[in-house]
Amino acid sequence: MTGPRYTKLVDSLPATVPFVGPEDQERNAGRPFAARLGANENGFGPSPRAIAAMAAAAGEVWKYGDSTSHDLRAALAAHHGVGIENVLVGEGIDGLLGYLCRLVIEPADAVVTSEGAYPTFNYHVAGFGGVLHKVPYKDDREDPQALIAKAAEVGAKLVYLSNPDNPMGTWHDRATVEAMIAAVPEGTLMVLDEAYVEFAPEGTEARIDADDPRVIRMRTFSKAHGMAGARVGYALGAPGLIAAFDKIRNHFGMCRISQAGALAALEDRTWQAYMRLLVAGARERIGEIAEANGLQALPSATNFVAIDCGADGDFARAVLRELGELGVFVRMPFIAPQDRCIRVSVGPETELEAFAEALPKALASARAGQSR
Amino acid sequence: MTGPRYTKLVDSLPATVPFVGPEDQERNAGRPFAARLGANENGFGPSPRAIAAMAAAAGEVWKYGDSTSHDLRAALAAHHGVGIENVLVGEGIDGLLGYLCRLVIEPADAVVTSEGAYPTFNYHVAGFGGVLHKVPYKDDREDPQALIAKAAEVGAKLVYLSNPDNPMGTWHDRATVEAMIAAVPEGTLMVLDEAYVEFAPEGTEARIDADDPRVIRMRTFSKAHGMAGARVGYALGAPGLIAAFDKIRNHFGMCRISQAGALAALEDRTWQAYMRLLVAGARERIGEIAEANGLQALPSATNFVAIDCGADGDFARAVLRELGELGVFVRMPFIAPQDRCIRVSVGPETELEAFAEALPKALASARAGQSR
Repeated sequence: MTGPRYTKLVDSLPATVPFVGPEDQERNAGRPFAARLGANENGFGPSPRAIAAMAAAAGEVWKYGDSTSHDLRAALAAHHGVGIENVLVGEGIDGLLGYLCRLVIEPADAVVTSEGAYPTFNYHVAGFGGVLHKVPYKDDREDPQALIAKAAEVGAKLVYLSNPDNPMGTWHDRATVEAMIAAVPEGTLMVLDEAYVEFAPEGTEARIDADDPRVIRMRTFSKAHGMAGARVGYALGAPGLIAAFDKIRNHFGMCRISQAGALAALEDRTWQAYMRLLVAGARERIGEIAEANGLQALPSATNFVAIDCGADGDFARAVLRELGELGVFVRMPFIAPQDRCIRVSVGPETELEAFAEALPKALASARAGQSR
Repeated sequence: MTGPRYTKLVDSLPATVPFVGPEDQERNAGRPFAARLGANENGFGPSPRAIAAMAAAAGEVWKYGDSTSHDLRAALAAHHGVGIENVLVGEGIDGLLGYLCRLVIEPADAVVTSEGAYPTFNYHVAGFGGVLHKVPYKDDREDPQALIAKAAEVGAKLVYLSNPDNPMGTWHDRATVEAMIAAVPEGTLMVLDEAYVEFAPEGTEARIDADDPRVIRMRTFSKAHGMAGARVGYALGAPGLIAAFDKIRNHFGMCRISQAGALAALEDRTWQAYMRLLVAGARERIGEIAEANGLQALPSATNFVAIDCGADGDFARAVLRELGELGVFVRMPFIAPQDRCIRVSVGPETELEAFAEALPKALASARAGQSR
């Protein structure tokens, strides 16, 4: 009796689990975190109206969700001034990126992204056998010109840009993004991940013809709407591309409660305005905490802040480790020189206060470790 | 400007949407159904404790779900008397079937199922380029011996059995299923879909060594737990196979609210006992409605009942259409001779009463149409 016969591709994939969540870390440590500021979640939480809508939908969850997410898509289409045929709803941006990779990537196909950019995109590309070509960040920002040049050079099927960027929180203005779209090589699709764009300054969001076949935009209810655990993402793109997902997607894959929550969240403009203020305030507070410790916070257009720990990656990793020991969950970039930073998500004052208390201790321990 | 370059496989897939949900049908008809009895949902709904747990989790949905679904997997492992390493939680059985197909199927690989069995399995097989070999039902039941013989003949990577069966509601006893597992050819994995097994008589559920590499069992919270819209399925299988899913699955794909609801539902043994009684009563009621109209209901081990409309597929399709006109949503098997039946899901008495009122009218209209 042997096991099943896996595909050659699956046999070639690493068996290590690429993503270790905070609950796993808590179980390993034997205690919960005092502050959960590492997963780019939004600790201010969802709109009270969305919470009420989800609670009400819980009793109706014996029904499958609407397989077309019609009402949510219609509301999103109105919100963005596009047609419903330009809108796809799916199980978070992560789910949509997986579907997109399945649509276009065959083994050995080329894909371009930035060195140190969103790892889940890379996971899905590799999971379908794609070959990743990476270009470095430039001044802590993704480099549109280099991305386009590399895409042209390798004949990429996909080129990825996150604007604003994760993990650095940096951003490009709309003119730069629009110029990148105009330069997308024939046969390449640009994946514009705008998970954080609601937090960015006016003039960041690119103006894109919804029918432009060169680009697909990814949006989410995880960040600005504080609903990461609900798994609602959406894509905006040309109708032909949006329709192609219907060939492969899990048609009844959307949680009905999440559909109801997202619709209510989208309609609650008041909460959205509060949220922008709350997040801007928390970013400022994180900046003050950094400064009080002699560190520099990078400007951020997201719901997290990269703090330059003032030395190399080993030092920042030590700070991160010490923060974890002190019950404060944060994360950090993987690649030099961005790995001189730790990445701190926004949250309510109680959590930021725990971070403020822990940071000087963590820095002292990390420095003591260095001089040992 | 052209669109993206899809894979050859995706180009070859049909563009038609294979699944039309009840909401879509309601929008097309311009009015809601009076009775929603077509999607094998469980209209008695989830445990009140599960509803309360989901409502409570709504406020915590700013957090991603636990990427390992640890607590739910631990509870399921205890429930089934297996190790946590034998349990995988995913986005419904549909999601798990998609992942499983991705793990094992390369274009032209052979897969065996029954003619007229679960179409979503077929959708995923085709979506990864697999070739489906189908064997007929025998006396309205899937035919384990024929499935095994076909799997051996074509060298299948997967062979699918649903016990109890959808769409007929029929079942095999455990000895038959255990004999089928013992006969699985080397290199074939048996997919045992037990979505409905909680409704089946004692002695239906096969006794399987959790580490047996020849079979993977699929279970769900959609049916017995009345939580179809929450998208929580799970698989029981050998640790190596369960671990393989970590290479490709969407690690943060589980809705946090759904995880909380499933855990509470699993713990509510009282509701589970009520549910079995409610479903058994509703099955009986559907049988009486059939009999009152001179029709025969097939014995069912599920939360739905196949009613033999007493003529051919065209007649049953006419009955189904007329029921739809009268606001009663049911479905039916696709393939002769099973398509002589309509398939009616259980639900509360108000919905069954609507069906009882509509059925004689639908039969009369269908008969009038026939004699025209």
